[in-house]
Amino acid sequence: MRVVALGGGHGLSASLQALRHITEAITAVVTVADDGGSSGRLRQDFDILPPGDLRMALAALCEDTVWGHQWSGVLQHRFGGDGDLAGHALGNLLIVALWDLLPGQEVRGLDLVGRLLNTRGRVLPMSQVPLDIEATVTVDGATVDGGKTDGGKTDGGRTDGGKTDGEGEGCAGTVTVRGQSQVARHPGRVTSVRLLPASPPACPEAVESIKLADVVVLGPGSWFTSVMPHLLVPDLLQALQDTPAQRVLTLNVSLTDDEDSGYTVADHVHAIAAHAPGLTFDHVIADPGVVRSEAERRALAKAVDRVGAELVVTTVAKMGRPGLHDTLRLAAAYRDVMSGVVS
Amino acid sequence: MRVVALGGGHGLSASLQALRHITEAITAVVTVADDGGSSGRLRQDFDILPPGDLRMALAALCEDTVWGHQWSGVLQHRFGGDGDLAGHALGNLLIVALWDLLPGQEVRGLDLVGRLLNTRGRVLPMSQVPLDIEATVTVDGATVDGGKTDGGKTDGGRTDGGKTDGEGEGCAGTVTVRGQSQVARHPGRVTSVRLLPASPPACPEAVESIKLADVVVLGPGSWFTSVMPHLLVPDLLQALQDTPAQRVLTLNVSLTDDEDSGYTVADHVHAIAAHAPGLTFDHVIADPGVVRSEAERRALAKAVDRVGAELVVTTVAKMGRPGLHDTLRLAAAYRDVMSGVVS
Repeated sequence: MRVVALGGGHGLSASLQALRHITEAITAVVTVADDGGSSGRLRQDFDILPPGDLRMALAALCEDTVWGHQWSGVLQHRFGGDGDLAGHALGNLLIVALWDLLPGQEVRGLDLVGRLLNTRGRVLPMSQVPLDIEATVTVDGATVDGGKTDGGKTDGGRTDGGKTDGEGEGCAGTVTVRGQSQVARHPGRVTSVRLLPASPPACPEAVESIKLADVVVLGPGSWFTSVMPHLLVPDLLQALQDTPAQRVLTLNVSLTDDEDSGYTVADHVHAIAAHAPGLTFDHVIADPGVVRSEAERRALAKAVDRVGAELVVTTVAKMGRPGLHDTLRLAAAYRDVMSGVVS
Repeated sequence: MRVVALGGGHGLSASLQALRHITEAITAVVTVADDGGSSGRLRQDFDILPPGDLRMALAALCEDTVWGHQWSGVLQHRFGGDGDLAGHALGNLLIVALWDLLPGQEVRGLDLVGRLLNTRGRVLPMSQVPLDIEATVTVDGATVDGGKTDGGKTDGGRTDGGKTDGEGEGCAGTVTVRGQSQVARHPGRVTSVRLLPASPPACPEAVESIKLADVVVLGPGSWFTSVMPHLLVPDLLQALQDTPAQRVLTLNVSLTDDEDSGYTVADHVHAIAAHAPGLTFDHVIADPGVVRSEAERRALAKAVDRVGAELVVTTVAKMGRPGLHDTLRLAAAYRDVMSGVVS
């Protein structure tokens, strides 16, 4: 079974770790809009795709052996101190080394990293050009207060980090925030996201993998900065619409990120529908923890109906670790929806 | 056949690449006195052993498969540009990552790198403390002129780089040069080398490997900065003297390095004898190219006699690449001396 998983960061990593329990034919299609930390510095220094999300996907696909687990840990290791290397993840540097050796051949470089690490499956960037995310964020008093109550660490000054652009969008209560790292931690409610440059070219191998897939999985992850960006790449969206593959949307198990504050999973599904009106899904997987009340369940059912899907509510959260997907439970859920046990 | 190869840099790498053709039980014991380039910066930033020579040995012991060759190339890759990573070799960063993950366990870290890369054999530091090399260099007019004639790039100012110490050694015509990178490129004639700190502790695993070896090989390589330092670690020298193993000394195939200017291979053997009076060898391997005249051959024979060895003159140089050992010819020479064909 050929499965393509789209996303970025920890959410995609969780999805890939689950999927590898049920298939070896996995392709990860990864966001390339990170502009913070190690990735941000490397992107600037080398004029390359930000490697961080690609590294996390590669680490998730390392062999399920002692050797593979050791490699996975080494890839994820970040240097400490305050020297040249401080904050860089070793895996990012490995990817950059391969790109340095194979200039202009990002996909071949990633394939070679995968071969060197003997990863299961393939890791592809969603686009071959580095992207930036720009979001419109509502920062009215109520929302900012909500952020404060949740995280207890929101300072009013942070909204100043958003660059109000000069083209009329910066009306009262709304700011335009640029950069994935800024959007991810900006207080307020993201109402829409865009990519810069707009309508970027898709990675052709990613488009091809979606066309040839048996199943495509979108989510979980930081919804506006890791999950939805894929839908803003026209050729990827078209491929997702056209593919004969089964389409699965995996919702988050908690909404504790700053960028999610004030949101429900139903809102997330509506955001997908609003940004990609023509895209439907076959199944939407939700943990019972995000639909605690009958009202929440009804709201989610309505949103899921809007994207043409069946709602599958099954425990996929990790016990005792709120916010994380449980690898084996998510694997079981994927297996059930993919094998038609749930329909 | 358990073989221990001692040295550093390109010379040790050449020896290891030859040895792997005849045995899989190889232990490399590597100098840790580099203070230049990537190693020098990492050593300073992280207060660790300089990883460069260890990386080169690991790269030389990578699998003899496409996969192994690819890893070897990636380890040796140096980042370009002028950002944080400029000049760093990826393999150095991998070693540092493992040391970061296993603080205070340099040998375990190197063993794990070897396992991750599926290297043949084992790579050990000669000491568990970072070392510095200090050399006494004769820079009288004749020698400096000789350097000028050879390299065509010696400027008189470079002798100023040597730090004349205040303890009476800085007499006319002699300078004390500190730091491997300085010694390696300082014009003049190295007359003696010392380690700082003096008499450093040996890596216990290196001592053990020498005691248990069937054959130990010293050289080739930068004679004063990569080959002789091992003899200045008291426990290593003692182990080399005590081991029942066959002792082989591999001479350089050319003497074109700045630090070698004015030297013959016979001088190199005498330098060994002078720095480690009690140490004898069974065989000394020399390429015909370094004993062109009858006088040179007689001088070398006399020096080899001084260290109690048999002289084996056999072609080990690479055709058309002066200064380099030919892997297969050196392997053949090692096989012959180790199997007793040459005695």
